[in-house]
Amino acid sequence: MDIKYMQRALELAKKGIGYTNPNPLVGAVIVKDGRVIGEGYHEVYGGHHAEVNAFLNSTEDVKGATMYVTLEPCSHYGKTPPCAKAIVEKGIKKVIIGMEDPNPLVSGRGIKIIKEAGIEVITGILEEEGRKLNEVFIKYISTNRPFCTMKTAMTLDGKIATYTNASKWITGELSRKYVHELRHRVAGIVVGIGTVLADDPALTTRLEDGTGNDPIRIIIDSSASIPLEAKVLNLKSDKKTIIATTEKADKSKLKALEEKGAEIIITPSKNGRVDLPLLMKELGVRKVDSVLLEGGSELNYSALEEGVVDKVNAFIAPKIIGGNEAKTPVGGRGKAYMGEAIKLNNIDIYRLGDDMMIEGYIKKEV
Amino acid sequence: MDIKYMQRALELAKKGIGYTNPNPLVGAVIVKDGRVIGEGYHEVYGGHHAEVNAFLNSTEDVKGATMYVTLEPCSHYGKTPPCAKAIVEKGIKKVIIGMEDPNPLVSGRGIKIIKEAGIEVITGILEEEGRKLNEVFIKYISTNRPFCTMKTAMTLDGKIATYTNASKWITGELSRKYVHELRHRVAGIVVGIGTVLADDPALTTRLEDGTGNDPIRIIIDSSASIPLEAKVLNLKSDKKTIIATTEKADKSKLKALEEKGAEIIITPSKNGRVDLPLLMKELGVRKVDSVLLEGGSELNYSALEEGVVDKVNAFIAPKIIGGNEAKTPVGGRGKAYMGEAIKLNNIDIYRLGDDMMIEGYIKKEV
Repeated sequence: MDIKYMQRALELAKKGIGYTNPNPLVGAVIVKDGRVIGEGYHEVYGGHHAEVNAFLNSTEDVKGATMYVTLEPCSHYGKTPPCAKAIVEKGIKKVIIGMEDPNPLVSGRGIKIIKEAGIEVITGILEEEGRKLNEVFIKYISTNRPFCTMKTAMTLDGKIATYTNASKWITGELSRKYVHELRHRVAGIVVGIGTVLADDPALTTRLEDGTGNDPIRIIIDSSASIPLEAKVLNLKSDKKTIIATTEKADKSKLKALEEKGAEIIITPSKNGRVDLPLLMKELGVRKVDSVLLEGGSELNYSALEEGVVDKVNAFIAPKIIGGNEAKTPVGGRGKAYMGEAIKLNNIDIYRLGDDMMIEGYIKKEV
Repeated sequence: MDIKYMQRALELAKKGIGYTNPNPLVGAVIVKDGRVIGEGYHEVYGGHHAEVNAFLNSTEDVKGATMYVTLEPCSHYGKTPPCAKAIVEKGIKKVIIGMEDPNPLVSGRGIKIIKEAGIEVITGILEEEGRKLNEVFIKYISTNRPFCTMKTAMTLDGKIATYTNASKWITGELSRKYVHELRHRVAGIVVGIGTVLADDPALTTRLEDGTGNDPIRIIIDSSASIPLEAKVLNLKSDKKTIIATTEKADKSKLKALEEKGAEIIITPSKNGRVDLPLLMKELGVRKVDSVLLEGGSELNYSALEEGVVDKVNAFIAPKIIGGNEAKTPVGGRGKAYMGEAIKLNNIDIYRLGDDMMIEGYIKKEV
């Protein structure tokens, strides 16, 4: 066992970011006599699994070789035949696995097939890295709800806009590019109607090289007040726009929105607002495994209070604008005491030009 | 010339932090035949200069040796005789200097004396580090105004307190310890009357080992409404408390404050408030070379708007409390557009436990 091959397998897995949802990111490396003889990764949803691609790409007979794979090989006939069986049939001698399958229904089954064929199995190699890489898949497969990343961007004095509501631009170019990376990675992007009315954003992904997956656009709009001429309703995009609304919405308006190609999701209203946990459930049913929440103060507060946020990406620009009336990333009523604060853990800090980005995970009561 | 000796001289200089104000931090290393034969630093205000301490500590004859010193040796008879002359008299062969004296009245004179004695001089070695180390001295000697560091502490959603005004504790233990380091380093600490009324802080320095220099406490209190029983008026501290007020203040109250040992500085009121630039001038006259501004939203905004802030130390805790009514680090009216933001440069990011601290300098129009 050499950890460097698992590192390589993780690197390969990352190449699938943005293309495999709602399936996992997986990489595989086949090693024989200290040489890599095959590499593969899960490239695109519905395509070959990493193990199969590694077999297809192998440059010599894999019999007797060792396979490094970031995730437990599958045991089921889905879009492709089970990888665990393929490994047995190909005569692989040893399998090094990053993490077990997080799907409670199948976890351990692939390993069982391989072990029963007399093949040596080692698990838990670079497991932490593997779990982080597949944080979206792990959440989705075990809850059927999308993994939600809340993205905020503020000045060093905590403002998301000036008192006149001007927000262009808080962060620098590198940060704004990175946001398009984030959009590329997720299945959906969630904004409030306030953002649509104020900025009329396209919410598409514009990566530097012109590529990038658009996310499904989800507009939280309890009374369906979005103008029919809003950009998100008039885009050239292979992904749809969803209007998440409540029974308060006017039926003829909803019809008009559907005629513009939008999908409508109605939840019972909760304090006059869209029921976010219910919306997440509905998105999960639609195979939306991940959403980027680019909300304003109110939507962010509701999402945090209702427990739908998993991760925070907080961009901070080194500038100060002041203003008692200027909005902050999270509004609402707020917590009364510091001890009630929502805490983040596993903090990482990134620098993007002059800006910084703080990444952390919401501590959940388990 | 070997840069490692200048690095050592800078390290030595740092030992004087908190004790030399309003004089500079200086370190000196004497090197002969590749061996360090003497080291010294400016230990305390009024004590020997670094060069003299290096001579006093030298373990053999310094004749023919090289001296590394972080700041140009002085040329004047002050509290001690000029170091430039001592260097000549001791027979030093070569002098390596970090930065020239920033005092416009004497800059270059020490170097001239040394050069005229036929001694080789090299300047500008690790100058950037030297300038950062003496940022306080540079500002004070060239403007006679204190160097002002604005310290803020907020949550990841930009709040300095909850909507109920609870602020204990935003940051963790390491951050709070570091604030005492900051207090130890400065000559004065500035807070608004709001902070005194809300928290009744002592504003003393409590370093872990029980040592630490208290700063002078300066309370911005335009109508002298501070209660006579406030902690800052009833401390055991070798440093005084200054009440900065305006003509609005009641004269008998001012007399009562003076009887409690406080010093009163009255400035003409500016929009009903203490004139901060004028106050800084008055503090400069009193040899206060540096202040730590631990203001609330309003005082911070005024200080920034009136251009008295040089540096920002922004502590950020990875927690979220929400609240439209919760205060942010900088309030006031605020800027109308992002382009008018006060920008920081030379950004450094430090991690203090789970917290981070962003340090930057206010970009000034020169």
